[in-house]
Formats: sequence, structure tokens, C-alpha cells
Amino acid sequence: MRADPRLSINQATIKHADLATALKATADAGVQSIGLWREPVNEVGLDTATKMLADSGLRFSTHCRGGFFTLPAGPERDAALDDNRRAIEETAVLAAAGAAGSTAVLVLVAGGLPEGSRDLIGARERVRDAIGALAGDAKAAGVTLAIEPLHPMYASDRAVISTLGQALDVAADFDATVVGAAVDTFHIWWDPQVLDQIARAGREGRIATYQVCDWKTPLAADVLLSRHYPGDGVIDFGSLTRAVIETGYDRDIEVELFNADIWADDPARVVARTAASFGEAISPHLR
Amino acid sequence: MRADPRLSINQATIKHADLATALKATADAGVQSIGLWREPVNEVGLDTATKMLADSGLRFSTHCRGGFFTLPAGPERDAALDDNRRAIEETAVLAAAGAAGSTAVLVLVAGGLPEGSRDLIGARERVRDAIGALAGDAKAAGVTLAIEPLHPMYASDRAVISTLGQALDVAADFDATVVGAAVDTFHIWWDPQVLDQIARAGREGRIATYQVCDWKTPLAADVLLSRHYPGDGVIDFGSLTRAVIETGYDRDIEVELFNADIWADDPARVVARTAASFGEAISPHLR
Repeated sequence: MRADPRLSINQATIKHADLATALKATADAGVQSIGLWREPVNEVGLDTATKMLADSGLRFSTHCRGGFFTLPAGPERDAALDDNRRAIEETAVLAAAGAAGSTAVLVLVAGGLPEGSRDLIGARERVRDAIGALAGDAKAAGVTLAIEPLHPMYASDRAVISTLGQALDVAADFDATVVGAAVDTFHIWWDPQVLDQIARAGREGRIATYQVCDWKTPLAADVLLSRHYPGDGVIDFGSLTRAVIETGYDRDIEVELFNADIWADDPARVVARTAASFGEAISPHLR
Repeated sequence: MRADPRLSINQATIKHADLATALKATADAGVQSIGLWREPVNEVGLDTATKMLADSGLRFSTHCRGGFFTLPAGPERDAALDDNRRAIEETAVLAAAGAAGSTAVLVLVAGGLPEGSRDLIGARERVRDAIGALAGDAKAAGVTLAIEPLHPMYASDRAVISTLGQALDVAADFDATVVGAAVDTFHIWWDPQVLDQIARAGREGRIATYQVCDWKTPLAADVLLSRHYPGDGVIDFGSLTRAVIETGYDRDIEVELFNADIWADDPARVVARTAASFGEAISPHLR
């Protein structure tokens, strides 16, 4: 089976592969696009990574990730903002090196409550402030910042932005080419407002990336690692994918799997299985 | 320290205590109210349980629990509805036996996706239908059905109602004395709409019960057992409790803890610790 031309392998799906292995496994499987993570890119250095990406012939769909914006004012927060500026630059350079159709999207994870804090509303305000501080850099670099709402089970320790509607409310202060949202099925499938908010995101031009993976219980003991191949769980990919496509979304669609069993598997086999599951669970809804 | 007069011990907090032990531990600690579970009540039989409750001098705050409404039409669903009718009767009888100020509230957990189903929207419709089928029985018995939104991490296997707003949307079809909502901090603290929805619930007369317990990460390996004493986690009980009190809510406030360590502890010690943590984390916001 040929891989769907819109599939992009998010590098986290083959977390233990270095950049060379990830690019090769993706291209060898006939997949046309990849989303990269900062750590393996910086392991070889941005210049080398850029050349490797260009040589691979793959499109570049997203860079993961920036964010972690909830710290109060101070040197730690300043350092985090500076690090996000480097991530914006990396995103622009990599997107320019990818094959035609690459997109310059930096995925942002908001960050959780600072240690000892119970001020959820304040933490959310600091996310908004941080995006305001970075919007000019992103615009200058031609990069879209994609606010990713994470599942509410991560609200305290990872992301104080929990719903697509909330991400869109934050993004609303900014130009849609500069600040959008990441629509990831795993995080938002349960939301009673999800179809309305996807339609709204489309109307507002804010769907910066669409990512698919499945939800299944019991959750892994480390709930961060509970993501499954599309089709292996209970998410109705038909209604969600059609809602995204009906907005006119025409970019790549990533599969990003955090799962210890998948990470322990051979990268080539994981990419092949990802392509097959995407073909069965997602592709029928793209036509 | 005297226990707060509004505190009610939900029996699940001392899960392994039988009814006699639970009533005694609660009353001995100077707590004035208790929420009961069906299993320990039915273990001694409703008549005996009713007499025991009356003899305890405690108020009765809620009965736990009905629901599990997402099955498709058929004998299993019919049996579930009949079981809910028995739960409604139990609730009425127990509330009449409790001390003055008891409330006839049956907490409903919606139920998860049926085995093999991905039809979340259909499951939610069946919840609405089931409540419609039971509303007449509840009204006749003078019982309020409290729809409990559960945290979205339980959406697939336990409750397809995930937010307070969604619970209120379902309740809106019914008289507010017959169908309300359970406001449980653990389940809804993360919701960006939570304060607005608490205010709405108050305006609509739908806060059937207010329950407090805390959220802390890492979550327990069995995420069902991740509930903590108020004050041990990250929930801002001030803003949530004040929002509830500002609606005019004047009933008991339950603490319901699912937590293996707490269940392994001595019931008298657990009740004392619950009363102390309530006094520190909740009582200051009730004035």
C-alpha cells in the first residue's frame, strides 16, 4: 500500500531514532513529510539538520516544540522566551529547506502551573503575554505559532490551555498567519464543543496543523504515553477529520505517538504501521 | 477543632467501612452529614439502613449512584433503568430518615462508550433519553437527579458527560427540582468556563450537590484513584467555593475521595483528617 500523500510522521513517533534514521525511515516508507523535534535537530546542529532535511526530499510540517510560558517574570521566564525565539528561527530555516509544500509551524505547549502555585487563571494570562512577546519575532520570520490545547488531564503539569476554544480565544488577539492552533484528536476528541470549535478554527483561519492519534483505556501508568495508532482506540476519526477538511484545511496531517511500546519497536516498522493505520482510519475521510 | 457544620463525608472516602462503621466514624468525629453508597446500604437492606441512618442523627446529603445510561435499547438498558428506579426509591426513603436538612439527591454517572462503539454523540443522546425515562419517577419520589460531569480522562470508559456546561445542557430539558448537576472540583477545576458555568448552574437552580477534593500529579496508575484531601493538590478552592456560595448554595458539601492509600487507612483517622483539611481549605471561603 502506498502511504497517503498527506501523511506526515511526527518524529516523536520514533523517538529513539536520531535525525538521520528518522528521515530515512520516513522517506523509505514512501511518506512525503515529517515533523521534527528540536532535540534531535540540535544534536546535529541546525545547519547539518537543514542539509539532511533538504537531501531527504521530505516536506517539513511542524517543529516541536516551543512554549512553557507559565513562569512568573524573572530570568527563567526570559530564558524560556529566548529559547522560543531560537525555536522560531529553526522553524523558519527548516521550513525553507523542506520540499515544496512545507509549512513553517512551531507547536507551542503552554506549560503547567508553576511549582507551588494554584493560580490557573494567572498562568493562562502569562501564556497570552508570552505569545504577545513572541508574535513579532514569529511574524518577521514567517512562522505560525500553533497553540496546542492538551487534554485536561495535563492541565496542572503540562498545559494550562485545555480546549480548542480556549486556544482560539488566546489566538484571537493576533493575526491568523502568526498565531493559530494545533488540532490534535487525542487531546480534544472528548470535548462536547469540538465540532463547533473546529469549524470556528477554520473560519478564523487558525488550523495550523492537524494531528491524529487514538485514545484507549486503561491509560498507561504514565498518562503521557497513552497515545495509540489511529484505529486502535475509540476516537471517531470520521467526524473529526471531515470537520477539519470541510474548513478547507489542505496541509499535511501528522501522526504523533507517545507510547513506550511503539518507541521500543523498530522505526521502519513503526513508520510502516503508522502509514497503514492512517490509510485505514484517516484517508477515507480526506476525499 | 470542631468539624465544619456543612461538611458531609461521602461514604466512598471510607470505602472499606461497612455502613455501621461509616455512620459511627462520621458521627463520632462531630461531622453532621453523610452521603451513602448503594452497595453498603443494600448489604444490610434498605429498611435496616434507614433505621441505622435515623439512629445516627446524621443528615443524608446524597445517594451514590445511578446512571450508566449509554447502552443501546435492549434488556440490559431496561435493567439499568429499573435499577435506577430502585435507586430513586432508596434516595427518597433515606432522605426522609436523615436529620433535618437532609437532601434527596441521587448522583448520576452517565456511563462510557459501549464496548466496541466510537459513537460519542449517540451515547450522549442515550443519556438524555434515559434521564427523560426516569424524570417522572424522580419527580413522584421528590428526588433530584444530579448529573455528574466527570473529568474528560474518563470520557471513554465512565462518563460521556465531561463538563458542567454539558450537564446543564442536558438538565435544561427538565424541571430544576428534578434534574440538576453535581459540581465536583476534581472533575471540573481545569475547565476555562468553570466559573461562568457555576454561576449559570446557580441561576438555573441546578446545583444539586457541591463536592470537594483535590487534584495532584503524577496521577495514580489507576487514574480513578487520584483524588486527594483538599489542600494536598493544586486546586484553587477559594475561587470555586466562593463561586458556588455566591449562587446561594446552602446545602452540605461532600468530600469524596477515591484513593488507595486513604482507603487503606483507619476510617476514624480518615474522617478526622477530612474534617481538618476541609476546615483549612474550604471553611474560610464559606463565610
